[in-house]
Amino acid sequence: MKKENLYELLLKDYNDGLNYSGVKGERLANRLTTISNIGLTKDGGSNRPGFSDKENQAKNLVKKWMEEAGLEVSEDNAGNTFGKLTGRKPDLKAILSGSHLDSVPNGGHFDGPLGVLAALEVVESWKDTNFIPNRSFEVVIFIDEEGARFNKGLHGSQAMIGGIKEENIKSLVDQNGLYFGDVLKNRGLNIRNFINSKRNLDNIELFIETHIEQGKILEKAKSPVGIVTGIAGPCWLEFQLEGMADHAGNTPMDNRNDALVAASDLILQINALPKSISSSAVATVGKMQVFPNAINVIPGKVNFFVDIRDIYEDTRDELVGKIIDILKIVTKKYNVHYTWHERLRVNPIPIKELIQKKLATSIKENGLSPISLPSGAGHDAMVVGKQVPVAMLFVQSKDGVSHNPNEWSSLNNCIHSIHVLKHFIENY
Amino acid sequence: MKKENLYELLLKDYNDGLNYSGVKGERLANRLTTISNIGLTKDGGSNRPGFSDKENQAKNLVKKWMEEAGLEVSEDNAGNTFGKLTGRKPDLKAILSGSHLDSVPNGGHFDGPLGVLAALEVVESWKDTNFIPNRSFEVVIFIDEEGARFNKGLHGSQAMIGGIKEENIKSLVDQNGLYFGDVLKNRGLNIRNFINSKRNLDNIELFIETHIEQGKILEKAKSPVGIVTGIAGPCWLEFQLEGMADHAGNTPMDNRNDALVAASDLILQINALPKSISSSAVATVGKMQVFPNAINVIPGKVNFFVDIRDIYEDTRDELVGKIIDILKIVTKKYNVHYTWHERLRVNPIPIKELIQKKLATSIKENGLSPISLPSGAGHDAMVVGKQVPVAMLFVQSKDGVSHNPNEWSSLNNCIHSIHVLKHFIENY
Repeated sequence: MKKENLYELLLKDYNDGLNYSGVKGERLANRLTTISNIGLTKDGGSNRPGFSDKENQAKNLVKKWMEEAGLEVSEDNAGNTFGKLTGRKPDLKAILSGSHLDSVPNGGHFDGPLGVLAALEVVESWKDTNFIPNRSFEVVIFIDEEGARFNKGLHGSQAMIGGIKEENIKSLVDQNGLYFGDVLKNRGLNIRNFINSKRNLDNIELFIETHIEQGKILEKAKSPVGIVTGIAGPCWLEFQLEGMADHAGNTPMDNRNDALVAASDLILQINALPKSISSSAVATVGKMQVFPNAINVIPGKVNFFVDIRDIYEDTRDELVGKIIDILKIVTKKYNVHYTWHERLRVNPIPIKELIQKKLATSIKENGLSPISLPSGAGHDAMVVGKQVPVAMLFVQSKDGVSHNPNEWSSLNNCIHSIHVLKHFIENY
Repeated sequence: MKKENLYELLLKDYNDGLNYSGVKGERLANRLTTISNIGLTKDGGSNRPGFSDKENQAKNLVKKWMEEAGLEVSEDNAGNTFGKLTGRKPDLKAILSGSHLDSVPNGGHFDGPLGVLAALEVVESWKDTNFIPNRSFEVVIFIDEEGARFNKGLHGSQAMIGGIKEENIKSLVDQNGLYFGDVLKNRGLNIRNFINSKRNLDNIELFIETHIEQGKILEKAKSPVGIVTGIAGPCWLEFQLEGMADHAGNTPMDNRNDALVAASDLILQINALPKSISSSAVATVGKMQVFPNAINVIPGKVNFFVDIRDIYEDTRDELVGKIIDILKIVTKKYNVHYTWHERLRVNPIPIKELIQKKLATSIKENGLSPISLPSGAGHDAMVVGKQVPVAMLFVQSKDGVSHNPNEWSSLNNCIHSIHVLKHFIENY
């Protein structure tokens, strides 16, 4: 992606018939491009780590836009930003929408900023058409979602729901040797206030996040926008198989304890399992190491991770259980020893069916066909969803690519999703 | 292995009823121990790289023993040593027997020295019993078999058969930055003479090498010594599978091009194939790398090597062909791309059936049951076998361990093999 080209590229195939009800593709394209230039990498990607000057610069810019749009801007003790439009009935609970502005080291220009700017575009459209919703509406910028700096993200949304524990952040160190506390200090924040920045959540009706899909389902379905049915919670299991590292030439086939052959059988069976449990369940072996890893030595040890996800806790946990059962059966078959450890277990976040139905109505009202899909990846909405109802709209991603300078969602698809978001909020 | 203990350990369970016909277990144990002390590592292993001072020290010691045993000692321009006993009928072609004295960096005390000392023990027994064979007999010490110094071995035996090409050795550099030529110079040798050190092979009837099995077949069969049926030639194939590195959460199971799942299917099928082709065929995937190798990313690329061996060229090549066929079928099934390269192909060395029968007779004459097994590993006999008939005797290895300080063959088993070797040569 060339710096000077993002705006032109976005506008190139834009159907300006989508510029109605106050929504303007050119404004969104201009804002996405302006943010993309903050922390632009030599590959044409974005580099705005959480709590960095670049993230802060982007945040200040969006705050300025919020103010210009007439929003009342505030920041909490974690660095999260809220731009509030007071509704006609201020006693009703508010709807919040947004995402994050930080990025992975050489990421794309849509993951995060699109969700913030989509919510802001809804406000802009209301301003242009003199519309004021019944419920108050807030545009949210969560800080440090990607966690590129400390290899641990979702800090802003965690702080907002009171989910940060001092012991979990105090010892975090970035690659420059800076502690979490030092980094906060550079932003005028501090750990004590950070962990105590829980917001009163009682006045929140719903948080809705617009986000690029980071998958290919919408692209295959030729749908600009999709309704997220739930946010999958990953469970990470680490398996270690131990056989015998014998000589590849001197050990007959029927006299082997080959840890890699056992692992291969396991991987095939793990790959076949999710379909038998639910259509949204997935299981992946992505990381694997073979020991001693020599051409002429039978693998004596294999270490690998299984990433298991579903949007429903019961089916996810059923899948975890079945995979551990298979581990026991397969290792017995090949006479290799096993150990396993659970390295992560995050609960899936369901999305209420009534909310999904309302999103489907908004999609139909915009002349599109509703399509539903799970979110396999974690998002700020996953964290917020622990405490308040959440919803997500996914925007079609080109080739499913993300966390990469080639990340792309067409302006048509982005604007379609904003119309859906707008209709949904107006009619909630 | 404690330095002071090797001799005692060897003698501990020794059945001195095996001391007959001039063969003496104590002499062999003493010599194995003396050599083990040259380059003894802190782990109790052997460290005598090819062309090193330690290898040379061991060679000089054995040369002294050769002379004391009445052998006519000579050295060729490669540093190989020959100790010749002229037979009663000097016009008959000679029988050669031996192995090497170099070791891997922290190797055992049997791999190599046992083959040299077994041949020498046969000569000692003849000296003690005033026996002179019809054919001349030569004890051989090949230089630099393991190749630990230049990651490329079998140099001595290759030189003897005229198999060294200047371009293949000239650019070899050891970890201290010394070129092959420099290392030769330190030993009083030079490259020109080294590559021209081919011996007249017409006067060699047979080369027979006694070697530890480095496998577990004889141990399982409770046989001290086995007849090698052939020396397997390895063929190394490198496979690269390329799918799509998608997000593990956002990519449904039926929408994946998972290179690791395809590789797993392949590995299982490769593992099942050899049995259908021959009982001595083996195929191993020992080295494998997964890319990008992240817990939450579907593997986009997998690279692995297949080590394929058999003692017969036709069945080995049939197995290679079938594995490539499977590669094509499996990658098509999973919709992943493949490339493959042949990285090594060494021809297997068959051992004449008549020679194997004679060895079986010698084993029976020594009150043992003949057992036959392939050699999966390469040896000096594999190289020599390209030009002259060869045979090998394998001596039982404890737990199949080799290239390790724990390498062990009991003195009983060693002496049994020497009686077999002696009988075989005397009755050839």
